[in-house]
Amino acid sequence: MASVAAPHHDGSRMYVSDPVPRLGQDVRVRVRVPRSSEYVGVRLRSTEDAESRIVPARRILSTRWENWYEADLRMANPLTLYRFMLLRQDGSFDWLTAAGVVDRETGDSMDFRATVFPGAPQWESAGAVYQIFPDRFARSAVAGERRAPAWAIPTPWGTPPLARGVDSGRQWYGGDLKGVEDHLDHIRDCGFSVVYLTPFFTAGSVHRYDASTFEHVDPLLGGDEALVSLARACHERGMRLMGDLTLNHTGIGHDWFRRALGDSDSPEHGFYMWRRWPDDYVSWRGVRSLPKLDWRSDALLDRLVRGPGSIAARWLGPDGLDGWRIDVANQVGRYVDIDANHRVAMAMRSTVDDATDGKGALVAEYMHQDPVGDLQGDGWQASMNYGGFSRPVWTWLCDPDSDIDYMEADMPFRRRSGLSMAASLQEAVARVPWKVAMAQWNILGSHDTARVRTIIGDDRLLDVAVGILATYPGVPMVFAGDERDAEGVTGEGARVCMDWSAPVGSHPRAMARYRDLLGLRRDHPALTSGGMRWVAVSDDAVAFLRETHDERLLVVAARSGGVSLPIDAVFVGEGEPRRLYGGGELRPGDDGWSWTSDAPAFGVWSLPPVPTPGW
Amino acid sequence: MASVAAPHHDGSRMYVSDPVPRLGQDVRVRVRVPRSSEYVGVRLRSTEDAESRIVPARRILSTRWENWYEADLRMANPLTLYRFMLLRQDGSFDWLTAAGVVDRETGDSMDFRATVFPGAPQWESAGAVYQIFPDRFARSAVAGERRAPAWAIPTPWGTPPLARGVDSGRQWYGGDLKGVEDHLDHIRDCGFSVVYLTPFFTAGSVHRYDASTFEHVDPLLGGDEALVSLARACHERGMRLMGDLTLNHTGIGHDWFRRALGDSDSPEHGFYMWRRWPDDYVSWRGVRSLPKLDWRSDALLDRLVRGPGSIAARWLGPDGLDGWRIDVANQVGRYVDIDANHRVAMAMRSTVDDATDGKGALVAEYMHQDPVGDLQGDGWQASMNYGGFSRPVWTWLCDPDSDIDYMEADMPFRRRSGLSMAASLQEAVARVPWKVAMAQWNILGSHDTARVRTIIGDDRLLDVAVGILATYPGVPMVFAGDERDAEGVTGEGARVCMDWSAPVGSHPRAMARYRDLLGLRRDHPALTSGGMRWVAVSDDAVAFLRETHDERLLVVAARSGGVSLPIDAVFVGEGEPRRLYGGGELRPGDDGWSWTSDAPAFGVWSLPPVPTPGW
Repeated sequence: MASVAAPHHDGSRMYVSDPVPRLGQDVRVRVRVPRSSEYVGVRLRSTEDAESRIVPARRILSTRWENWYEADLRMANPLTLYRFMLLRQDGSFDWLTAAGVVDRETGDSMDFRATVFPGAPQWESAGAVYQIFPDRFARSAVAGERRAPAWAIPTPWGTPPLARGVDSGRQWYGGDLKGVEDHLDHIRDCGFSVVYLTPFFTAGSVHRYDASTFEHVDPLLGGDEALVSLARACHERGMRLMGDLTLNHTGIGHDWFRRALGDSDSPEHGFYMWRRWPDDYVSWRGVRSLPKLDWRSDALLDRLVRGPGSIAARWLGPDGLDGWRIDVANQVGRYVDIDANHRVAMAMRSTVDDATDGKGALVAEYMHQDPVGDLQGDGWQASMNYGGFSRPVWTWLCDPDSDIDYMEADMPFRRRSGLSMAASLQEAVARVPWKVAMAQWNILGSHDTARVRTIIGDDRLLDVAVGILATYPGVPMVFAGDERDAEGVTGEGARVCMDWSAPVGSHPRAMARYRDLLGLRRDHPALTSGGMRWVAVSDDAVAFLRETHDERLLVVAARSGGVSLPIDAVFVGEGEPRRLYGGGELRPGDDGWSWTSDAPAFGVWSLPPVPTPGW
Repeated sequence: MASVAAPHHDGSRMYVSDPVPRLGQDVRVRVRVPRSSEYVGVRLRSTEDAESRIVPARRILSTRWENWYEADLRMANPLTLYRFMLLRQDGSFDWLTAAGVVDRETGDSMDFRATVFPGAPQWESAGAVYQIFPDRFARSAVAGERRAPAWAIPTPWGTPPLARGVDSGRQWYGGDLKGVEDHLDHIRDCGFSVVYLTPFFTAGSVHRYDASTFEHVDPLLGGDEALVSLARACHERGMRLMGDLTLNHTGIGHDWFRRALGDSDSPEHGFYMWRRWPDDYVSWRGVRSLPKLDWRSDALLDRLVRGPGSIAARWLGPDGLDGWRIDVANQVGRYVDIDANHRVAMAMRSTVDDATDGKGALVAEYMHQDPVGDLQGDGWQASMNYGGFSRPVWTWLCDPDSDIDYMEADMPFRRRSGLSMAASLQEAVARVPWKVAMAQWNILGSHDTARVRTIIGDDRLLDVAVGILATYPGVPMVFAGDERDAEGVTGEGARVCMDWSAPVGSHPRAMARYRDLLGLRRDHPALTSGGMRWVAVSDDAVAFLRETHDERLLVVAARSGGVSLPIDAVFVGEGEPRRLYGGGELRPGDDGWSWTSDAPAFGVWSLPPVPTPGW
């Protein structure tokens, strides 16, 4: 395929004067238009109280390669949609939307989205998240003193966990929070700045998504004091700590549910959804041990998520958490003809904002479901980006003959083309405000999926996968153990114990992969906040540009050898590209540049500066 | 371009067992898969409380050309999204969405949409709507006796109206409702079954979008009795009558606004949005004579739209209206950070349903704005389909050198390709429930646009435009006068008087165009309720299929001569196509069929039956 520069705008500071405007404010928005295109002018179309508003754009800079235009976007509503008209000499026009240039009439689903809401905090969007399943991460010196509860099946450290079945949640290996604290330096040295713990409340399983209280950290993990100690240790290192809150359901053993079962006049009775009390109640996917919460209840809202006295607020703070990940957020408050999801998300957002002075994070799990309807700025800050990152990248790089189950649907992983991947990645970024896209948790594997190493296999392709993870818009979230070559064919089977007893220097390639690529991301603001332009896409190779006013990084990835990817001269500009990371060769030709590689490879190149308008 | 049959599903009765299922019910949904494709199996993915649910589909019929699959769709929620997985032998799959086959991961914005809500009544979706601007349609015998009000500029019948400016709303030609009644046979004979009147309430202009009351029909139009008489005359002929209700604003002279101005303690004070009473209030686009209604007010809701005593209810009934068109519905209830639009739409829907025993129509104006977010089934039944029909068809067929203003944006009409038109048409159908798509008012011109004759010019292309109007999913809505070659370059300028004094037999081509094509539509259920498949698309010609279990109609349209459009043999099946209407030639070739035409043309062909599974 050819690489042809198209007109471009995105929500980054390259193109938008104010990322968090006030309601009613005019924001300056910019478009760059290659001089090689047929467009001679630009207008801005935006919505105002659901009506269309078209204003002219002024040309503010002409360079050898491109023209820059600027227009005033009025923030008429908290979420204001906009797109550009690209005008030709003959009076015809194309639309520039977040999905690119469109040569036809189209609805607003791909419009750019500006919001008055702040995005996630800087530490989140510029960070890298390390996910820990506490039972499997590390046993501290005191872990051996704890006695197994009735539900637990004590299991020796290192035993491969069951791949599925009810007993998988009972296999108790005895990791604890002090064990996490003991290894914070490992985590930091691998390049991570945020520790995200799967649930720590007392429960009836090792995964603890069946909480029996939200009042206390499970004594099996070291209790409340261990969390305080871990939080302080994180904060001392400049790291952040996030917890995992289940808002969709509780465990059947939860204090609230027991009270509700015992007394239909109790306030807690109204927290759950009864078909016929006390025997028949709504539960998560019909699993009777996980009764579903009823978010029509104001009392529940106050108890769990609304206001400074709520459970969600009380665990946040300097000696506690810096934010929450919300379990099965897609299902929260939704049942048949009830939909209280937005109500819960708004309350959580306001509680997190208030409890942290606007510096807390709120990230929602959406695994199989499209999150974009719930990600318009005022509720969850971001989601676990399975649909918009994991699945597109997995299916570009997976073992083509994999027999691992894909999407829990009794189907194998099969490969798709680079064009498919890029289109899916772009769609997901296009459909949410830019602030949300920057804060999405990009995931190559979690406690709910097969291990990325098992899905992809080839070490060179793992380099490519983690390369994309570190450079594509969004926040890398890595399941502990990926940096030590952990394997597993299912979510449960992937919850393997860390091999701390392995010799020093084990897993050199995997360790270096994360350390180097996350380091690159940390050192280059363009990778955490820069604009995003697709440069070239083919079946087996892709290239994109991350840009700020100060730096321009070309990212290139190939899943096979023998690849030659054309790079339009407009992207490279004048001067010599400089290799920052990785492989392949970037060379000038008669007609632009080309990147070639004789093996699967990932590379990052620093491109020479081009003139851009400042603010 | 090639014509290749792809797997297909839509919301029609060909593919869905129950168009109005109950909540919780299983609906059978079907997919047809060409045997020439590489797909060997099908699964259904649907949402349930915002979680994914995948079930197998069973093969229920194999014919020479295709395999049919069926799966059970659980109506888990009032609006249930679904799509199909098309499985290949090697374990890979594509998605079949409402936008067609997608070879990548994608969000749910293009999912099929099933709802438990009834659609518009049959008379609406199977009907054809004739829009009348009462002042310009016809003067009855008593029209001459009426005296001009102070605001009016009496203007002789037939004088070309002003194209723009405040005086355009004051040009009083004196048409009245008895004049409409006098010409009902003309309307019916042209093929229309529904009369839609722009506002008839007393107001301060001829367009009457500035109502001064909702209690009475303007005496200038003959008063309340004239409406009763007109309604009875329509109903006697089996025709329906729709009114036009302005919910976004009233006129500055409205009884309510005068009371609100006079007394800040009045209930009506709360109907409007005051920045500072009484001088500063919110108005439609800042036009001070059109104060905007405040839909946070329960009292306003009750007065105007909620319940049997509301104004919206009182005008409906056997001696009154069969439904409402809602003016600037997009803006209703929306202002800065207020959005009460859905609340108003739900109340209106329920009022219309109750007042008409579920047989009333409720159609919303969305001119520049994408309506799909407001068209998911429980509020407006449909919209005026400017974005999803008018603009795509106009830009395919318009005079390529037009200097008419497009989109009120100081831009000329310019042509786009058939691929652009088809993609836009398909997107608009894809993003709403099928019931909504069937009920959308497809428009080639209205009292707010230039006349279609002026936009398109060429009589042969007008045949094509009206051909598409009569055969594409949705309800034709025609502005009175189009059948008599009316012209006009702006909305105001297009509000010309009907030329009733012209000789009998005037406008033979235009009259025949509407009569014949609307007759074709009326006689063929496939055109009003059949499934919709694109068959072939090129720059200058398009073909699509409308199908029920009983008939299959191939629709072909070309905007230029020298066109040859390939038609895959799968679409035609075995046997001889039969010309139902229009031009061009459909002939078999070595590799499928082809339709050719040496001039712009529109044609409809009845195709031989193919085996399909019954219910």
